[in-house]
Amino acid sequence: MKLLEDRIIKDGKVGEGNVLKVDSFVNHQIDVDFMNEVGKEFFRLFGDEKIDKILTIEASGIGIACIVAQYFHVPVVFAKKTKTNNIYADVYTSKVESYTHGTTYDIVVSKDFLKEGENVLIIDDFLAKGSALLSLMSLIKSAGANIVGAGIVIEKAYQKGGEIVRDMGVRVESLAKIKSMSVENGVEFC
Amino acid sequence: MKLLEDRIIKDGKVGEGNVLKVDSFVNHQIDVDFMNEVGKEFFRLFGDEKIDKILTIEASGIGIACIVAQYFHVPVVFAKKTKTNNIYADVYTSKVESYTHGTTYDIVVSKDFLKEGENVLIIDDFLAKGSALLSLMSLIKSAGANIVGAGIVIEKAYQKGGEIVRDMGVRVESLAKIKSMSVENGVEFC
Repeated sequence: MKLLEDRIIKDGKVGEGNVLKVDSFVNHQIDVDFMNEVGKEFFRLFGDEKIDKILTIEASGIGIACIVAQYFHVPVVFAKKTKTNNIYADVYTSKVESYTHGTTYDIVVSKDFLKEGENVLIIDDFLAKGSALLSLMSLIKSAGANIVGAGIVIEKAYQKGGEIVRDMGVRVESLAKIKSMSVENGVEFC
Repeated sequence: MKLLEDRIIKDGKVGEGNVLKVDSFVNHQIDVDFMNEVGKEFFRLFGDEKIDKILTIEASGIGIACIVAQYFHVPVVFAKKTKTNNIYADVYTSKVESYTHGTTYDIVVSKDFLKEGENVLIIDDFLAKGSALLSLMSLIKSAGANIVGAGIVIEKAYQKGGEIVRDMGVRVESLAKIKSMSVENGVEFC
């Protein structure tokens, strides 16, 4: 998606430790009008699929997923990073390794909101090593629901996540695929 | 907002410990089409104000704020609950007491995304004792920005948060105000 690549070049910042900072428009401040263009693009890509629900993970996936969901007219469910007192019912749970933060955490989804046979599209801001995506897929499988595919805003294609998930037969559509990046040379797209 | 009150009656569940569970449409699963009605209502209420930015707090505020922001055509900034490695720049910080979870945590906003003189509307899902709202207000003040007001989806009006903030001269608009609630008698609105 040219518009996104241009925006990453303009406003993204490459930091030490393999970090692409897009927090001025994706994951701290959210450019909502821009995200509508992202939503339209995901609808162009997945609009012909039967989709009952969009699944994402807190926190930075939520805003994007909600904007995207408007084009599909389906609810968003977001996996929560810890089990809170507000979830009474049983939950599906899975583990995520965060390489950015150097931590491992559980994500949970209430069994009320992922049901057998539902067709679920995953939406997230980043795909790198794939831990969050695999974990969301695991929640969907636990529920006996179907994984329609994953819509990713930015994929670090030089890492293995995308390959692993595509090799499992899951459709992954990334709107910007980064071939390489460095503080010195900036971002190069596939 | 009648539509919201009806939905709370229909889908909300009152639990022990003063918990109103609306996670089937507000804060775990999000009914995005319904949230557009919430967005229109906030625009009806605040549309005549000069607003540069919407501020909310992760996680459950983000989806609502993004949907609402579309009507104002302004970006959303969400305060993060911990300082992550992804935020390089200096941050404004403030403390929140979560009565639901029995914890205290810091919230942060990058100084890049709250600027002196900006007019900021706060959007959040719940207002009870007011700790999160007061903390968001504190971030805005730290930046030298202006608090336009707060748009709250559900206010537990039998708790003191709304009164405290209104007494400070801040405009608080809550779409549903709960007068009382109990497991036995359900929800009564103001």
